Amino acid sequence: MELHGLHIIANTQSARASSTFHAFDPSTGASLEPAFHEATTEEIDFAAQAAHDAFEAFRQTTPEQRAAFLEAIADETLALGDALLDRASAETGHPRARCEAERMRSVNQARLFASFVREGSWVDARIDTAEPDRQPLPKPDVRSLMQPVGPVAVFGASNFPIAISVLGSDTVSAFAAGCPVVVKAHPAHPGTCEIASAAIVAAAVKTGMPEGVFSLVHGKEHACGIELVKHPRIMAAAFTGSLAGGRALFDVANARPRPIPFFAEMGSVNPVFVLPGALAENGEAIARDFVASLTTGVGQFCTNPGLVFGLDSPEWRHFRDMAASHVRSWAPQTMLHAGIHRAYQYGIEERRGRDALALVAESDGEPRPERSEAAGFLFETDAAGLAENPSLYEELFGPVSTLVKCGAPGDLERFAEQLDGSLTASVHGTPDDLKKYSGLLSVLERKAGRLIFNGYPVGLEVCHAMHHGGPYPATCHSHFTSIGTRCIQRFVRPVCYQSWPQEALPAELRDDNPRGIWRLVDGERTRESL
Amino acid sequence: MELHGLHIIANTQSARASSTFHAFDPSTGASLEPAFHEATTEEIDFAAQAAHDAFEAFRQTTPEQRAAFLEAIADETLALGDALLDRASAETGHPRARCEAERMRSVNQARLFASFVREGSWVDARIDTAEPDRQPLPKPDVRSLMQPVGPVAVFGASNFPIAISVLGSDTVSAFAAGCPVVVKAHPAHPGTCEIASAAIVAAAVKTGMPEGVFSLVHGKEHACGIELVKHPRIMAAAFTGSLAGGRALFDVANARPRPIPFFAEMGSVNPVFVLPGALAENGEAIARDFVASLTTGVGQFCTNPGLVFGLDSPEWRHFRDMAASHVRSWAPQTMLHAGIHRAYQYGIEERRGRDALALVAESDGEPRPERSEAAGFLFETDAAGLAENPSLYEELFGPVSTLVKCGAPGDLERFAEQLDGSLTASVHGTPDDLKKYSGLLSVLERKAGRLIFNGYPVGLEVCHAMHHGGPYPATCHSHFTSIGTRCIQRFVRPVCYQSWPQEALPAELRDDNPRGIWRLVDGERTRESL
Repeated sequence: MELHGLHIIANTQSARASSTFHAFDPSTGASLEPAFHEATTEEIDFAAQAAHDAFEAFRQTTPEQRAAFLEAIADETLALGDALLDRASAETGHPRARCEAERMRSVNQARLFASFVREGSWVDARIDTAEPDRQPLPKPDVRSLMQPVGPVAVFGASNFPIAISVLGSDTVSAFAAGCPVVVKAHPAHPGTCEIASAAIVAAAVKTGMPEGVFSLVHGKEHACGIELVKHPRIMAAAFTGSLAGGRALFDVANARPRPIPFFAEMGSVNPVFVLPGALAENGEAIARDFVASLTTGVGQFCTNPGLVFGLDSPEWRHFRDMAASHVRSWAPQTMLHAGIHRAYQYGIEERRGRDALALVAESDGEPRPERSEAAGFLFETDAAGLAENPSLYEELFGPVSTLVKCGAPGDLERFAEQLDGSLTASVHGTPDDLKKYSGLLSVLERKAGRLIFNGYPVGLEVCHAMHHGGPYPATCHSHFTSIGTRCIQRFVRPVCYQSWPQEALPAELRDDNPRGIWRLVDGERTRESL
Repeated sequence: MELHGLHIIANTQSARASSTFHAFDPSTGASLEPAFHEATTEEIDFAAQAAHDAFEAFRQTTPEQRAAFLEAIADETLALGDALLDRASAETGHPRARCEAERMRSVNQARLFASFVREGSWVDARIDTAEPDRQPLPKPDVRSLMQPVGPVAVFGASNFPIAISVLGSDTVSAFAAGCPVVVKAHPAHPGTCEIASAAIVAAAVKTGMPEGVFSLVHGKEHACGIELVKHPRIMAAAFTGSLAGGRALFDVANARPRPIPFFAEMGSVNPVFVLPGALAENGEAIARDFVASLTTGVGQFCTNPGLVFGLDSPEWRHFRDMAASHVRSWAPQTMLHAGIHRAYQYGIEERRGRDALALVAESDGEPRPERSEAAGFLFETDAAGLAENPSLYEELFGPVSTLVKCGAPGDLERFAEQLDGSLTASVHGTPDDLKKYSGLLSVLERKAGRLIFNGYPVGLEVCHAMHHGGPYPATCHSHFTSIGTRCIQRFVRPVCYQSWPQEALPAELRDDNPRGIWRLVDGERTRESL
């Protein structure tokens, strides 16, 4: 598939700027063709305006039509064949198998949202019937359901060039809701974005979606993203990336004359608590699987386990030594791009220099900086060291984690209380541990979006119950998830109809319930018609 | 009931500042005893910290316990007797009957939330069961539900001293969710706030709620509210009031090191469209009921109808003349306080001075400024006049509305497209009108939170389907409502449990579904146990 390095705005290609940039293969440092054009202010305006112009027609599509669009996206994604996988691998250093897994996740996700929107109960339809004779005032007929908010801007993640980018849950959930999408291509994998966009454009054409339902704009400069978030036609934005980038755009979204919600998932430290019973019963397996979780994808997950807490004991020291040996034998691998690699190297050097941190292990293999390779690192500190180094509560993106040996059982709960918001918290324990540390579990319920028992945070299931979010700084809005079907709620708002005539109501609110969805009728959940 | 003018912090009274302020009776201008103390930084800190300290115990209460607390609030509110009504009337100029209606709404609302939280399905429990043998990866058991976010700051409205203040839906929905509340008393009705707080404190003590579940702080200076919103222990805030005040605090909430959601309902222009068929069939009744809606409560509703659109015709002119006669015969009444009265007077003078606006009618009766009395006003303009005066799209709080006579049917849709976000939009029409103006209805679905057919926006039903919200500037977050049971969603976030042991799960997620709630199990809605 030939790449053009052009923006895709309402099914047409565009490139008005003379300034361009290239993607790089992080495993060689080589620049990849073609050159990609920076989006101009005019092009961003075209894309946002086209999305607005498409909105009215798109939101009027039936759930069946949107489901067909999503299924066509899944089919067209598979039809891209090797082109998508090859480019994603070249632009990110991800092994081929990882790219295939991401593609499968995207395809399954689009199909899940197709079935979800076809079933239709997600619109939260509610009907309170009239009581014309009520005293002192008659009660009107009041009905409501979720309606799409309008054009959505999407900022994908560097670490998931397929599954959390153009073809990610932000795009498909916005489409499922009835919102047009403008994607700001990630500048580290613009070619993957261009290829993925071809699948969406093909699906939109095949299923008769309005022009402007999807656009892709490129930009390496921050201005491109800022202009998109500021654009008055954009009604919401979704972002996956760093805290610095997410917060900057969140601030832009809030400072607009008419603010819009900015849903940023910004990673976190993902604490792991290994309780004494689990250490004694299962310490070696936990050490092995923890390091596997830590190093998967070169540690480049927003759910990477960055802090591990336990009580100092012979079992803890054995756990540490086993984890250390696994880290040593883990061979350095190429990170996503040179910038992330530099930040990781800087963070490691900074941690090496701290007195309160002991270096427990690093990869035996020598990383090759020209290939942006990262070694694995394991540090250890104690209660005092953590108290003196609050920056350990912050994420360092890459295959590094810090063990925290605590002296007293109360330390675990105390340090949990100090944690910032996190996407996940993991607990390894026996039934007896759970009873003894119930206070710790309560604290973690207030700190994290997802609690994992005897398991590891990396790798998440795309399903109805998944929550990939958490209190700030894990996200900007702890009410919302960016993965799983609940993420559609980011792009809808309630609309209420009072004494509204049957023929003008959305189908989901009509007396006869033509879509057969679950509704809340006078406080009772039912699929019956009125 | 004797008033003290003190803050109520975790069941104890406090007053550390020497600076004080008084409430006023707007109908006389007289200052009302006692003096109320400004909250100090220390007192705000005590209240927020007490709320935080109460959170863990409060969120662990059962739904039954919280329901009992809410029902006790309803009972204790009634037990306040005349003290609440008398003071509310004195501080706002509201007639006694209005205060009684507000009290009944508060009482019913607390009971509605009690039954809502007792039923329990609102937590949106979801379970995706494990598939240990799935290829290529096993599927874990994933469950999630809504959990409270933490302490909530509440800013009540000047125009509803009982029903949207200390005893409003913000407070009771936060309690229903399991969130402690710190209310910033409205400085125009601090005595009503103190009396209402006594009911909550009594209910909390009777039902064994933790100290700190509720506090009330007073302040006339902006600093008090700003400090409360900035306080790191406050996790969300709800506000009803002006655009200027709401936006200022929204900006404070977003600028925090750890931003919090700020749910502001800030009023709107609430357009009314009177379509030709309705004008012909029913113009006189619409004119009468429109003016009744406009002048109820001296026009001091966030749902007050501020713009009325129709097509110029003999029927329109008759409608205008009838509306004018109703406005003329409406006797001036006292506004909520001198500040609101001044702003209204200023806005009226400003509109009188515009060439494009014709004064159609004002109250025959002479308003007495020393009693903060407002006359009713009706203006008229045309398409060109509205285009030249975009500030007419902004709310002017009080009994004033502007008629917009349009020359062409397309004008209605065109002007609707120019509207900012609004809490409501009302349409008067016949079945034939609806067919002809379906494009207008579509536009209004994108602009408003609630659409009303052949009715008026003022007065809203507290029920499951109600939505009292809308796109900015009606609110800061169009996803959320401030009235109706859906408003509980402002104060909860999803928490997910992966492979979590049964005994440590919240009851709502256990296999045996001990609360018998509706859950989404593997994508199917059911009340069955697993």
